[in-house]
Amino acid sequence: MTNLSTGRLIGVGTGPGDPDLLTVKAVKALKKADVVAYFAKAGRHGNGRTVVDGLLRPDVTLLPLYYPVTTEIDKHHDDYKRQITAFYDASAEAVAVHLNDGRTVAILSEGDPLFYGSYMHLHVRLATRYPTEVIAGITAMSGCWSLAGMPIVQGDDVLSVLPGTMDEAELARRLADTHAAVIMKVGRNLPKIRRALATAGRLRHAVYVERGTMSNGAMTELAERDDSEAPYFSLILVPGWERAS
Amino acid sequence: MTNLSTGRLIGVGTGPGDPDLLTVKAVKALKKADVVAYFAKAGRHGNGRTVVDGLLRPDVTLLPLYYPVTTEIDKHHDDYKRQITAFYDASAEAVAVHLNDGRTVAILSEGDPLFYGSYMHLHVRLATRYPTEVIAGITAMSGCWSLAGMPIVQGDDVLSVLPGTMDEAELARRLADTHAAVIMKVGRNLPKIRRALATAGRLRHAVYVERGTMSNGAMTELAERDDSEAPYFSLILVPGWERAS
Repeated sequence: MTNLSTGRLIGVGTGPGDPDLLTVKAVKALKKADVVAYFAKAGRHGNGRTVVDGLLRPDVTLLPLYYPVTTEIDKHHDDYKRQITAFYDASAEAVAVHLNDGRTVAILSEGDPLFYGSYMHLHVRLATRYPTEVIAGITAMSGCWSLAGMPIVQGDDVLSVLPGTMDEAELARRLADTHAAVIMKVGRNLPKIRRALATAGRLRHAVYVERGTMSNGAMTELAERDDSEAPYFSLILVPGWERAS
Repeated sequence: MTNLSTGRLIGVGTGPGDPDLLTVKAVKALKKADVVAYFAKAGRHGNGRTVVDGLLRPDVTLLPLYYPVTTEIDKHHDDYKRQITAFYDASAEAVAVHLNDGRTVAILSEGDPLFYGSYMHLHVRLATRYPTEVIAGITAMSGCWSLAGMPIVQGDDVLSVLPGTMDEAELARRLADTHAAVIMKVGRNLPKIRRALATAGRLRHAVYVERGTMSNGAMTELAERDDSEAPYFSLILVPGWERAS
């Protein structure tokens, strides 16, 4: 088989949850794809898949890529890294089988494929071997600040996107050294994030957004949110623009 | 007239230039809008408008908002600030006339409306007075890293979005203190940005993207780009992820 007969890989950003926030380009690509691959927890439907249900060809081949169960293993432990690397290797090969057979494979990626997305683990394994296209998606943070109607950055503002997993002192330092901030991976880090925002003097304007743009979404000033664990699709916005407050 | 009979304001993100990178939601809103307002330089068509031509109702009312000519005035001068504030005030009132008459007004915003967009100057003047919705758009930076196929951030990476207008030492300090960076407003700041990247030890992986996702777009390693002035729709990407390099 020559290289010309291989299929095409498309990383498709599925946006923050509302199917209408897919791009026109993503919709077109999904309607034509022979195979749609997506990451999901074992036994789950997958959030990306929920967004695109109804768009796919009736004869589409679905290729779920189920994460290994690693809840008992520390993320920084070598066993975890080995398992997850093996999983991405095997997933890439499962996709490659279809590409070798000349099929177009769309890989779903919540938000934007190259912005904290699992897709990029397959991208780096496959993009040098097959014709590849990445279709940008609306990020969760864009979905959230749009839902909140919050101007996040303007003019010469600096925006920092920070993981909530970061050490508290480091998080406070960075929050004090930026105009605007988006804090991802809130989850069980909420109490620590709140303390870091207070230390940095940025707590007053911080807004907590839960599942932005999903049908059960909600937003509130962080000061009014308790410290119970936040769902995965939540983040904290600190606007950079004075007039936003 | 009661408040119920006023029109609806919609801030519509038109994305990075490719009409197929509009969201489905944006297309639906534009097809229904009574009035489409957009910013443009005097005598120009406006980039946002170019993207949506062909989607609008035949009987749509177009409301161009022409920036005042301020090229001779320093941006930090009070005269400039006064002129630009008066322009946004007048623009908001021009939109309000239609809203008061019960028309739905879509305001175009290149990229994402609340991410460095001019739209937000109207948003803060109108959103408290009229029912308002903001439709997220693909940012120029997402368009660019997708075109480049460059994984920008992964895992616990910090992303810094930095204006190229920043002081060189400050830019270098921030570039050395982040995993990934996007440098906006390149234009005539390119030589300074290059020096700051070198000082921070980040020049090697920096990529220059010109007009990402527009039909005449181009990308190149920054090391291979000369120092001549860059167009407005260009930016520099520094990937955070080791494997991206």
